[in-house]
Amino acid sequence: MNSSIVRYTLGQVLKIEAVLLLLPCIVALIYSESKGICFLVVAAICAFLGFGMTILKPESNLFYLKEGCIITSLCWIFLSFFGALPFYLSGEIPSLTDALFETVSGFTTTGASILSEVESLSKCITFWRCFTHWIGGMGVLVFLLAIIPIGGGSQINIMKAESPGPSVGKLVPKIRSTARILYIIYFVLTVLEIIFLMAGGMSLFISICTATATAGTGGFGVMNDSLAGFSPYIQWVVTIFMILFGVNFNAYYLIVFNQVRKAITMEEVVHYFAIILVAIAIIFTRIAGSYAHAADALRDTAFQVASIITTTGFSTVDFDKWPAVCQTVLVFLMFIGACAGSTGGGIKVSRLIILRKTIIKEMISYVHPKSIKKIKMDDKPVEHEVVRATNVFFITFVIIFSVSVLLVSIDGNDLVTNFTAVAATINNIGPGLSKVGPALNYGHFSIFSKYVLMFDMIAGRLELFPLLMLFHPELWKELFAHYIRKFSK
Amino acid sequence: MNSSIVRYTLGQVLKIEAVLLLLPCIVALIYSESKGICFLVVAAICAFLGFGMTILKPESNLFYLKEGCIITSLCWIFLSFFGALPFYLSGEIPSLTDALFETVSGFTTTGASILSEVESLSKCITFWRCFTHWIGGMGVLVFLLAIIPIGGGSQINIMKAESPGPSVGKLVPKIRSTARILYIIYFVLTVLEIIFLMAGGMSLFISICTATATAGTGGFGVMNDSLAGFSPYIQWVVTIFMILFGVNFNAYYLIVFNQVRKAITMEEVVHYFAIILVAIAIIFTRIAGSYAHAADALRDTAFQVASIITTTGFSTVDFDKWPAVCQTVLVFLMFIGACAGSTGGGIKVSRLIILRKTIIKEMISYVHPKSIKKIKMDDKPVEHEVVRATNVFFITFVIIFSVSVLLVSIDGNDLVTNFTAVAATINNIGPGLSKVGPALNYGHFSIFSKYVLMFDMIAGRLELFPLLMLFHPELWKELFAHYIRKFSK
Repeated sequence: MNSSIVRYTLGQVLKIEAVLLLLPCIVALIYSESKGICFLVVAAICAFLGFGMTILKPESNLFYLKEGCIITSLCWIFLSFFGALPFYLSGEIPSLTDALFETVSGFTTTGASILSEVESLSKCITFWRCFTHWIGGMGVLVFLLAIIPIGGGSQINIMKAESPGPSVGKLVPKIRSTARILYIIYFVLTVLEIIFLMAGGMSLFISICTATATAGTGGFGVMNDSLAGFSPYIQWVVTIFMILFGVNFNAYYLIVFNQVRKAITMEEVVHYFAIILVAIAIIFTRIAGSYAHAADALRDTAFQVASIITTTGFSTVDFDKWPAVCQTVLVFLMFIGACAGSTGGGIKVSRLIILRKTIIKEMISYVHPKSIKKIKMDDKPVEHEVVRATNVFFITFVIIFSVSVLLVSIDGNDLVTNFTAVAATINNIGPGLSKVGPALNYGHFSIFSKYVLMFDMIAGRLELFPLLMLFHPELWKELFAHYIRKFSK
Repeated sequence: MNSSIVRYTLGQVLKIEAVLLLLPCIVALIYSESKGICFLVVAAICAFLGFGMTILKPESNLFYLKEGCIITSLCWIFLSFFGALPFYLSGEIPSLTDALFETVSGFTTTGASILSEVESLSKCITFWRCFTHWIGGMGVLVFLLAIIPIGGGSQINIMKAESPGPSVGKLVPKIRSTARILYIIYFVLTVLEIIFLMAGGMSLFISICTATATAGTGGFGVMNDSLAGFSPYIQWVVTIFMILFGVNFNAYYLIVFNQVRKAITMEEVVHYFAIILVAIAIIFTRIAGSYAHAADALRDTAFQVASIITTTGFSTVDFDKWPAVCQTVLVFLMFIGACAGSTGGGIKVSRLIILRKTIIKEMISYVHPKSIKKIKMDDKPVEHEVVRATNVFFITFVIIFSVSVLLVSIDGNDLVTNFTAVAATINNIGPGLSKVGPALNYGHFSIFSKYVLMFDMIAGRLELFPLLMLFHPELWKELFAHYIRKFSK
């Protein structure tokens, strides 16, 4: 294990966090809020630690998948811990566990909140809360890759660990250029949303907060009723941008390079839109009757469907009061999630396509035992390794999910609360049903359950294995072997 | 496709059913019930069809996995259809769908009932209802294999399709002897339970009904309150026998041949008992406080845990009223299920062991990418094919489960009802929670939902793929190609 590269990269991440923490300071200056000082203090701590950890260059630039996993999970834990300090120090969230929960929920783009009241938060805190979604959406390590040359030839392992989806598509041969292109698309789409929101009369501040929370498919709102109070125009803009941020970013890359046809025929993208349309159709026919205008019913349906499948978690109505079949459809969408290579969570559409094809292949093998047809996606054969990894991912997902439900149930809440709380956190959505419905929050869970749900959020965001690796004792032994050797000399 | 062997075997199965239908006739004679005539009529129909279908010997004895699947699923559908006729003809269940539901539930050893009142049923109907569990528990095709020499060298494919578990253990080299040994163990254990029950003062008739329902891990009771009204001694006897019928029958085979040590150290058996003990411990500590005597709490806990993990579905208390954490544990047990090679349903303990080992292997491969350790069970390496099939099984299981929940939710029931109704049918248990709790029944579902749940019961009993194969159009084309050729001549 190359532990010096772990130390070095984490140091770099802390330096980036120090810079990012200056943004809420600026917000505090503009609105002359004294609480901005908390951000400055934490930024100083991060900078100090960051520089300390990067004084010594790594002894070797070599790293493999295990270093990639360790770096990624520790990076997300560090980020969350220091990101939580301003909430705690400012006194806006008096419990450290709660502050940590809110920050993990922010960075992992979950949007599950422990706050029952958000309109009274100071502006700098509100901004930081939404902005964590934007940082977490594309990933801070991908950002690191985009700006700093780190590691040898294996940066792909970091990207693999942090990027959503069964296989990482390198858009261009160089990882660094891929990371840059992704961030440019991400930035441009976010700015576009801000412009469209402001055109609807939203203030610049609320537009920025809403757009960053949409871009990361996060879901922290600025208002207590999420987006229910905004105009139909604003709600439609957010609906469309939520759907756009759930699309595989490879499609945008193809569109930019004039391959529109290839982009709109991508199997995953076609399935993604088909699922959205079917879900809207089912829910709309069930709830339209209870609305005075069909247009309102359609808008609410489209908004909720987009919000849940992209795992954003904004809401315009309390869908906990919808008929059971609509709720079931939403719970389904929670697990399906967005496209791979987007900022959304969930199992991902492409994984489900691969799983469906695995089952069909199995059925064919019963009829033609000797056939050795390969599973194809977009007319290209899917590597056996990807199929295998997808299967193992799914199994691990279901098992982590089930064990989490069991652990959370100790609190004594009803089954629907426990089930959807875990579903909404492991899939990085935010609101669930019953006691974690859109009108309620996660504040009532015990400290133990909150840590279980934080684990689920990070596990979901990093797609399970990088975080699971932290529980592999051998890795820790390897990680510290280096230092133990040094000290025993 | 060898369609003549399909026809021939189904004919044999109908002949067996004709014989089995004579047993309730005898019961009717003893209790002088005129409804026995219905059984006689249906037996005659089965015999007539059976002889018709077996006049011509099959053109070839050759069959493969696809014939095995088709035979097995059609056999179960035929059995259920003709088995349902007496319920319908006697007027005891006035709806054909309901009669079919009850019979499918019986043969698949589910025990989910549409009846709210069972004590008023005539004796012959009560006997047939419980006896279907006994037939379905070990499987009618396994019985066929035990008594009639059919097929060439590939009878293992029938056994594979009908026997529970990831891999069929041939106890002895000859399939026919294996099938016989299994039935002998099954029969002896059933008789033992009858004796123990009668020793507790139960009448012969109720003992036989209860023992056959326990043996098949079915769960249809003779009383409206299932086993709640019987003495503690009877409840303990049933608890112990439920657990015994959930053990892998290979263990009994080993015990009979004096390899006790090997039997009690079987990995699956050890895990099975460990899970039972942990579940009892969790639930007991939660509910003991609400009982006057700890012994009563322990008995109720042990009974419900045994009933659910073995997928029997008897009850002594209404666990729908238990605290949420106890219910969550029970829902877990529903999915875990009994051992492979037992009469129980569910995912099976051995499959979960393989899945757990698959995840650990994946974690190790992150640290040592080049390691090629094989997964082991009982110190023997598990064939790659078994691991792969287990993974595919699990994925297919979760997907069929999810789609079923979605379809059943159209009825408009709450999420817990839909979720546990599907869980209780696909895992062949019987009672679920909420509106399908132990004190209630499945009568309120729509006809469509009842067929979805029937599909789940058979899919669960046959372990998914044999039944799924019925939806493979190519198989039907192949099946009838033979006859089409014949007629066009």
